[in-house]
Amino acid sequence: MTSYLLTPGPLTTSDATRRAMNRDWGSRDKDFIGLTRRLRERLCRIAEAGPAYTCVPLQGSGTFIIEAALQTLVPADGKLLVLINGAYGRRMVEIMRRAGREVDAIEVGEDETIPAARVAERLAADPAVTDVALVHCETTAGILNPLESVAEAVRRAGRRLLVDAMSSFGALPIATEALGLAAIVASSNKCLEGVPGIGFAVVDTSLLAARKGNAASLTLDLHAQWRGFEENGQWRFTPPTQVLAALGAALDQHEAEGGVAARAARYAANCRALVDGMRRLGFRTLLSDAVQAPIIVTFLVPPHPAFRFAEFYDRLHARGFVIYPGKLTKVDSFRIGCIGAIDDAVITRALDAVETVMREMGMTPGGLYNA
Amino acid sequence: MTSYLLTPGPLTTSDATRRAMNRDWGSRDKDFIGLTRRLRERLCRIAEAGPAYTCVPLQGSGTFIIEAALQTLVPADGKLLVLINGAYGRRMVEIMRRAGREVDAIEVGEDETIPAARVAERLAADPAVTDVALVHCETTAGILNPLESVAEAVRRAGRRLLVDAMSSFGALPIATEALGLAAIVASSNKCLEGVPGIGFAVVDTSLLAARKGNAASLTLDLHAQWRGFEENGQWRFTPPTQVLAALGAALDQHEAEGGVAARAARYAANCRALVDGMRRLGFRTLLSDAVQAPIIVTFLVPPHPAFRFAEFYDRLHARGFVIYPGKLTKVDSFRIGCIGAIDDAVITRALDAVETVMREMGMTPGGLYNA
Repeated sequence: MTSYLLTPGPLTTSDATRRAMNRDWGSRDKDFIGLTRRLRERLCRIAEAGPAYTCVPLQGSGTFIIEAALQTLVPADGKLLVLINGAYGRRMVEIMRRAGREVDAIEVGEDETIPAARVAERLAADPAVTDVALVHCETTAGILNPLESVAEAVRRAGRRLLVDAMSSFGALPIATEALGLAAIVASSNKCLEGVPGIGFAVVDTSLLAARKGNAASLTLDLHAQWRGFEENGQWRFTPPTQVLAALGAALDQHEAEGGVAARAARYAANCRALVDGMRRLGFRTLLSDAVQAPIIVTFLVPPHPAFRFAEFYDRLHARGFVIYPGKLTKVDSFRIGCIGAIDDAVITRALDAVETVMREMGMTPGGLYNA
Repeated sequence: MTSYLLTPGPLTTSDATRRAMNRDWGSRDKDFIGLTRRLRERLCRIAEAGPAYTCVPLQGSGTFIIEAALQTLVPADGKLLVLINGAYGRRMVEIMRRAGREVDAIEVGEDETIPAARVAERLAADPAVTDVALVHCETTAGILNPLESVAEAVRRAGRRLLVDAMSSFGALPIATEALGLAAIVASSNKCLEGVPGIGFAVVDTSLLAARKGNAASLTLDLHAQWRGFEENGQWRFTPPTQVLAALGAALDQHEAEGGVAARAARYAANCRALVDGMRRLGFRTLLSDAVQAPIIVTFLVPPHPAFRFAEFYDRLHARGFVIYPGKLTKVDSFRIGCIGAIDDAVITRALDAVETVMREMGMTPGGLYNA
């Protein structure tokens, strides 16, 4: 049976994307060098980044490219300020501590956006901070952070901003160059709708050029990775060739759909259908609609005695819908994603499945908070 | 047109292996947890490692799992002795230097095997060395190192041996437990005939358990990666789900073929056909047959004035055979691999293509050294 993945990724992909994996590629062959070059160019365009920027893809998951960007771009004698409202911000602090690098943080609640004014205050108070890191869409709760106002505060303070755009890249516009970002990082298997295995950074080239030998890791050194591409077009180390071929196909479909704007519209429709439908069934969202990103939605565990998440998950799974099997937030909740190669008709079928499962479990749709 | 990859990897894969990628998997779903668990168990069995060992897979290329193993397993205050006869040994030294760890080396020529007696002498002379690293099959020249005698020397000296089995795992028997190895590392896309994107270490569990916090990287920390699997069966960070599904299918085929012994026999036949055929055409090998591993063969660039490698490569490419596009050795040479989902009938066709290309380029088969 075909299952739909309603998670923060890996996601449901299209047949065309998966079909692109049905070929073997010589990873140092000219055909593959061309594929890599085109991918790097297209990712820069999606990032709205001109010739002052370069795209450096890296093997591994999103966390690998995050760690590589932090190890390479934050100077070894610098200090990073991480803006936290969820698990992914906290993870950046852990990466820096592991590497023995200086790090500080501003942390707010998981249902609150990062306040740009507090960032400005902190930067004014701490001249040691050289770099700031922001998670654009924090999928812990599914919140959208105010990238523009934070970027403005960081720029005014004369510091560099690194953006984790893992869960927004390709579906929410990011004016990398206009905002003066030092780097944004993302991965193949979120809103670009590729399969997992590759992350990438779109980086200010002059900054990257100045960071030779700054990373204390060979594989996570984005400067050396970049030099490899520039010197002969090849990857330093074996890339996941089929994953990259799938990403190429996924970018074809992204372009054919109408780029970032069209994808944003489809995901917004998915999100609207999901939130409206779940509320009709009696569920409540953790976030207010004003700060909800159209990526993944956190629903509170209802007080109804018949709701047991493990059973709810398994029954939805049996009906072909895989939701996130757990929670990242501090409050008791669960998450359903609305991204991937799906439209609101799929969301409607998922909602039908939720309604059926509720009745099977002895819950009356609409009656979760007054059982 | 179908191309055959006669390289050190990525390789030609079977249709069944690539077909296994035509599914989306929830990476935290129970189905995928089961897939991961079975892979880890099967890789331990191929490594001839019992319950005292565990398998820890890691996202990325072979170099990622090498760096992760070195960062995690060599104590931060220890010292690694790297045994070098090619590029992959030299790379381990670079990894250690980058991480600020102590490292020393024994280096011999690329066409010489590592002498166990010199290892024993060095270990007796330098009590600071805690760990030794050996590349089992050094694909720089294609040489097979004497794993058993080196392991014996290291064991007698009371040190730990880490083995890079990247290009031998699955095709040459490695008695991990009987040899008392601390760890062996390999990847999905060599002799196991999967697609690239995953490396793995088979590690002495008690050693791994003692290395909490030893790595200065979050993503490359094999101890934390292992704890993740042990705690809930899940990957800490998003894995390349399709790559792992392909590896599962590839291991099914490895088992159906008859395991390591059958694969060794097929590759040996491929290698024999390749070496004999190329010699008949007038080429000479860098290595003597006694030290040649049945993985990849290095041929000397012949002195014939009509031989230009770039043209030779392109013409073979046009006929559907992709060889390694360059060299790693210090001597002027090129490499042709004999591993992957191919048999000696494919090698025979490749030799026919070489012969045709030689004639097209104005070389007489058999007459390369007396033109």
